[in-house]
Amino acid sequence: MTNNEKALQMHAEWNGKLETVAKAHVNTREDLAIAYTPGVAEPCKVIAKDPEAAYVYTQKANTVAVVSDGSAVLGLGNIGALAAMPVMEGKAVLFKEFGGVNAVPICLDTQDTEEIIKTVVNIAPAFGGINLEDISAPRCFEIEERLKELLDIPVFHDDQHGTAIVVLAGIINGLKVTGKKKEDCRVVVNGAGSAGVAITKLLLKYGFIHVTMCDISGILGKDSKDLNWMQQKMVELTNLEGKTGTLADALVGADIFVGVSAPGIVSKEMVASMNQDSILFAMANPVPEIMPDLAKEAGARVVGTGRSDFPNQVNNVVAFPGIFKGALEGRATQITEEMKLATAHAIAGLVPDEELSDVNILPEAFDPRVADVVSNAVKALI
Amino acid sequence: MTNNEKALQMHAEWNGKLETVAKAHVNTREDLAIAYTPGVAEPCKVIAKDPEAAYVYTQKANTVAVVSDGSAVLGLGNIGALAAMPVMEGKAVLFKEFGGVNAVPICLDTQDTEEIIKTVVNIAPAFGGINLEDISAPRCFEIEERLKELLDIPVFHDDQHGTAIVVLAGIINGLKVTGKKKEDCRVVVNGAGSAGVAITKLLLKYGFIHVTMCDISGILGKDSKDLNWMQQKMVELTNLEGKTGTLADALVGADIFVGVSAPGIVSKEMVASMNQDSILFAMANPVPEIMPDLAKEAGARVVGTGRSDFPNQVNNVVAFPGIFKGALEGRATQITEEMKLATAHAIAGLVPDEELSDVNILPEAFDPRVADVVSNAVKALI
Repeated sequence: MTNNEKALQMHAEWNGKLETVAKAHVNTREDLAIAYTPGVAEPCKVIAKDPEAAYVYTQKANTVAVVSDGSAVLGLGNIGALAAMPVMEGKAVLFKEFGGVNAVPICLDTQDTEEIIKTVVNIAPAFGGINLEDISAPRCFEIEERLKELLDIPVFHDDQHGTAIVVLAGIINGLKVTGKKKEDCRVVVNGAGSAGVAITKLLLKYGFIHVTMCDISGILGKDSKDLNWMQQKMVELTNLEGKTGTLADALVGADIFVGVSAPGIVSKEMVASMNQDSILFAMANPVPEIMPDLAKEAGARVVGTGRSDFPNQVNNVVAFPGIFKGALEGRATQITEEMKLATAHAIAGLVPDEELSDVNILPEAFDPRVADVVSNAVKALI
Repeated sequence: MTNNEKALQMHAEWNGKLETVAKAHVNTREDLAIAYTPGVAEPCKVIAKDPEAAYVYTQKANTVAVVSDGSAVLGLGNIGALAAMPVMEGKAVLFKEFGGVNAVPICLDTQDTEEIIKTVVNIAPAFGGINLEDISAPRCFEIEERLKELLDIPVFHDDQHGTAIVVLAGIINGLKVTGKKKEDCRVVVNGAGSAGVAITKLLLKYGFIHVTMCDISGILGKDSKDLNWMQQKMVELTNLEGKTGTLADALVGADIFVGVSAPGIVSKEMVASMNQDSILFAMANPVPEIMPDLAKEAGARVVGTGRSDFPNQVNNVVAFPGIFKGALEGRATQITEEMKLATAHAIAGLVPDEELSDVNILPEAFDPRVADVVSNAVKALI
């Protein structure tokens, strides 16, 4: 049986990868009178007077909604809400398994920005946080920004920030390994969707100065056509030298390449044109922008991908479960930029200097320390 | 410690009465590749082609949303979404504990009918059924009717139909005990909100002819003022003799009283004015319309309440978990009127004729046979 066949068979066996389980068991009339009527009226009355008490008496304390409209699911594209369910259930499983956070998949039967925002606001009372997932750009930017304004619970679009945090963690250690300095590095981010934009923003926030974004049409600059509003914002912050041309042009003399784009679009020649000791994160899935062995042959020093069968895997699972664990435990109302930076540092710090190497810049997804280290980094900033 | 204090303490200890638990555990890279990427893409692709496959590969098969806007919570009134959470969590606990059905509490931060409808439609893909709860009348009628039209999954307002089904079950057995015939009985339903309306409708559907509704202003008739649209519909179907007056007037010569109204509003004199072998369901909570001992003294033969400390408890928990269990297992797209009648008969049938008595007309809430008997009754009609 192939892995794909096994995945299908197991999904049928699970028949839903989650279940809701009662912490309050109801075996007797007395149980019923405490967990339900009439006893349940007591916490209701307390919360009606003091909304904060919901964090004491309800699942709001430790439950997030995993919300998608199915518009940009994995590499499958716009497959809709129902077909997105296995991914959102999977994400919810990871929240629980890696972070101990309860998570409820919510797939929305609308792709209208205003309706999505209204719907999430309407369902927010039951949840302590909102994890947005697989919503296409540029809608995802507006949806997240507006929800952050409207809600007093953390809202986090993992495709953007989870990816950005883990990439930054890898780059922090990549700089250590190569001895490069962020101020001097030229960074090229290929892909100007949700992940590319968030990675670029976080790299700038971290202190990189020379970042150039590319997309399928080449280098993004102030004269680029057909930019969406977020990309227009980004060209104000990037490509300070006003370069034009293709991805290949951008890579000449670059130190770092971050790809969240398409399989095989980076050639050995392009890598060879980069500066010495170059760092590549080629995260197209399942086939990277360039395979690690080819990149190495062309002179790359550190290569990361999204794959678990190569070194330096960039896997969001080291970020989002711990981030929400910390945010919920510390009752954060937002995931701030400072928390994202601190999380990246915390993840990078899990690989001690003496163990750092070209092929060991990120902790394993299953490193049991990750969730606590990340959640403590978040809590320290609340 | 009082029971109320204990309820508060236990709710704080639970810190949420539910948790989401993974059926798909993720301990290795291989697990991750099956439950999440890349394997998860397989069920997504199948569902994208065939939406029905969601019932094979996702939690839609066995998960309901328990949806409230917090506008009519227990006897507490309009306490809002957040304060309604302990009740919705409790309801979700009962779904799982009594019916094995996964349930997710969703409390809505809106009380606008159109917004509620839109929000529930938007979140429906993740769920196999919608249980509406504690939404005030007459909005609850429109919300349920519209959602039934808009969605292809069962929508069921438990305050209406759960209550109606269990009352009818009790009445079916009450008729057996007293030897009364439905065609001849005069029934008075006091309370013209969600439960009163649904009870009246189901009694008519069952074959009662003479049903009179009352509310705080007395008997409802075609000349009554300030009726909402649903009550206007109901006066076309009830009070065929065009009676006017108070609840006391309605009860003269009545055989059956059903109260979903207010504590203590039925006097011994009123009961004494009813026909012989009268049947009373006095379900105001926690204090009934008349206490059972007083009703008995005044000549009532069968008395039921909502309380577990008196005989003949009317408790929805014998209905809704089994109804959704059956609807989900049988993939019903609606809970039909026929299913409601069949459920009432199934519940009534759990008390064998030889055990029937004035004080034993309904099965116990904890009778382990209930959920399966009810779910089979539902499935037989799909």
